[in-house]
Amino acid sequence: MSEARTRAPLAIVSGSGTLPFAVAEAAMKAGRDVVLFAIRRAADTARVAAYRHHWIGIGQLGRLRRLAHAEGCREMVLIGGVVRPPIRDLLLDIEGLRFAWSAARAFGGGDNHLLSSLIAHLEGYGFTIRGAHEIAPEIAVRVGPLGSRVPGPAEKADIARGLAVLAAISPFDVGQGAAVAGNRVIAIEGPEGTDQMLLRIAEMRRTGRLRTPARTGVLVKAPKIGQDRRVDLPSIGPNTIDGAAKAGLAGIAVLSGSSIVAEPERFAEDADRAGIFVVGVGPDGLYE
Amino acid sequence: MSEARTRAPLAIVSGSGTLPFAVAEAAMKAGRDVVLFAIRRAADTARVAAYRHHWIGIGQLGRLRRLAHAEGCREMVLIGGVVRPPIRDLLLDIEGLRFAWSAARAFGGGDNHLLSSLIAHLEGYGFTIRGAHEIAPEIAVRVGPLGSRVPGPAEKADIARGLAVLAAISPFDVGQGAAVAGNRVIAIEGPEGTDQMLLRIAEMRRTGRLRTPARTGVLVKAPKIGQDRRVDLPSIGPNTIDGAAKAGLAGIAVLSGSSIVAEPERFAEDADRAGIFVVGVGPDGLYE
Repeated sequence: MSEARTRAPLAIVSGSGTLPFAVAEAAMKAGRDVVLFAIRRAADTARVAAYRHHWIGIGQLGRLRRLAHAEGCREMVLIGGVVRPPIRDLLLDIEGLRFAWSAARAFGGGDNHLLSSLIAHLEGYGFTIRGAHEIAPEIAVRVGPLGSRVPGPAEKADIARGLAVLAAISPFDVGQGAAVAGNRVIAIEGPEGTDQMLLRIAEMRRTGRLRTPARTGVLVKAPKIGQDRRVDLPSIGPNTIDGAAKAGLAGIAVLSGSSIVAEPERFAEDADRAGIFVVGVGPDGLYE
Repeated sequence: MSEARTRAPLAIVSGSGTLPFAVAEAAMKAGRDVVLFAIRRAADTARVAAYRHHWIGIGQLGRLRRLAHAEGCREMVLIGGVVRPPIRDLLLDIEGLRFAWSAARAFGGGDNHLLSSLIAHLEGYGFTIRGAHEIAPEIAVRVGPLGSRVPGPAEKADIARGLAVLAAISPFDVGQGAAVAGNRVIAIEGPEGTDQMLLRIAEMRRTGRLRTPARTGVLVKAPKIGQDRRVDLPSIGPNTIDGAAKAGLAGIAVLSGSSIVAEPERFAEDADRAGIFVVGVGPDGLYE
């Protein structure tokens, strides 16, 4: 990486949630200028205002290219949540349209495929795409427990089974999460996302569809195998703790190194307060 | 199969839904007596009353054994839905308790494992467990379309992908259903069941989480690989058509020979009225 490249302001294409700001703060702390390219209807308007920024529609790739070049950006991070908008809201400019056309032709189904195409397209503009966890290593979940609680033997078995089921569905580009309780897979995440999957577990308990005792089971999150780890890493936040607690789970396990959390220390305190464990694990499900 | 065995009245252990009555009618049409062992809180009280029957609690294996022997039953079918009850409602008798104990010791997680243990236990009592589709071949879905609609090329690809993802999760004993739209896996069924999974898809469309055009995508159902096909075969009914239509899917595909439908002709009419296809397919997803 040339010095000119890392001295140039970092372009942060910012979706929803607090992660874009965690990345911005980390970059600025390291002495780097940042420019946020805030995605309309996704990024937090109030928080974006505190940074140098431009608003872009999700289909405006030409606008993104022009503005980021004008700002002198060479490196770019894509971070935060984006819900696929309806075609009519895409505000496609010519370049966005060209991308959408080529992506649709090659479209294999899931998010992973779409994001790979997008990265290749942005690199074609001359930007280097960096992972959020490279720019802000402090947000990458490390191996080991985040709070004071740790999984017991039953939870360790659930974690291993959750990683195994995620590996099995990985080629299908479905989702990055599953929940396992008492060695039984009780949910596999699809496009509904983690929060909705946790709500479903809470509902299954409420209606008696699930009979596992309260405070058993684990939410397991891991990126898809072969996924480009520069975008769409599994992330956890306050919602995840709240959802896992309401779903009656004992804890949360994420693949270390390639899962992210916006404010690790505050997150650990929240987890302790909620009485659930959060642990970064290796691909084998172990953390010791 | 000895003649004495097939002449003896058939014991139909009956859960919820209309399938137990379809099996009873088919057996009676073939000249056989039937006795329903209706599961409390599951079987349809009004319809059960039309047949020779006994009510049993779901944990009362000793009561089932005694009554079925007293009725002279040699063969037994287990059919219809049962939601796992809370332990306190199990009404376990001594033999039920013994089974629950051995099943819990060997318990690997999902329904498949539990049902295999139950079959082995009932066979230990001297009963022969038969599949509902053996007794009533007319309820087994055959290869080919059930109504007048058929899948197009995109739907055929979705069906193949659905069967592939079900095969991939099969070792995890999760569920028997998945939904695929535009080659993208949009839901994998867990303990919530097919109806709830379809509701989830409808909700994802409503909230804009899913953007596939209306009337695309397929619900795919198949038994788990290696599953004992005498119990818990994937079933479809009027609810499935209604749910698939509301989820905006184009149709339903089930593995032929090992999926069941209570009233195939009425079901085909319902599907035509709802404008969706229903097709029985081979393991390769083909039906032609």
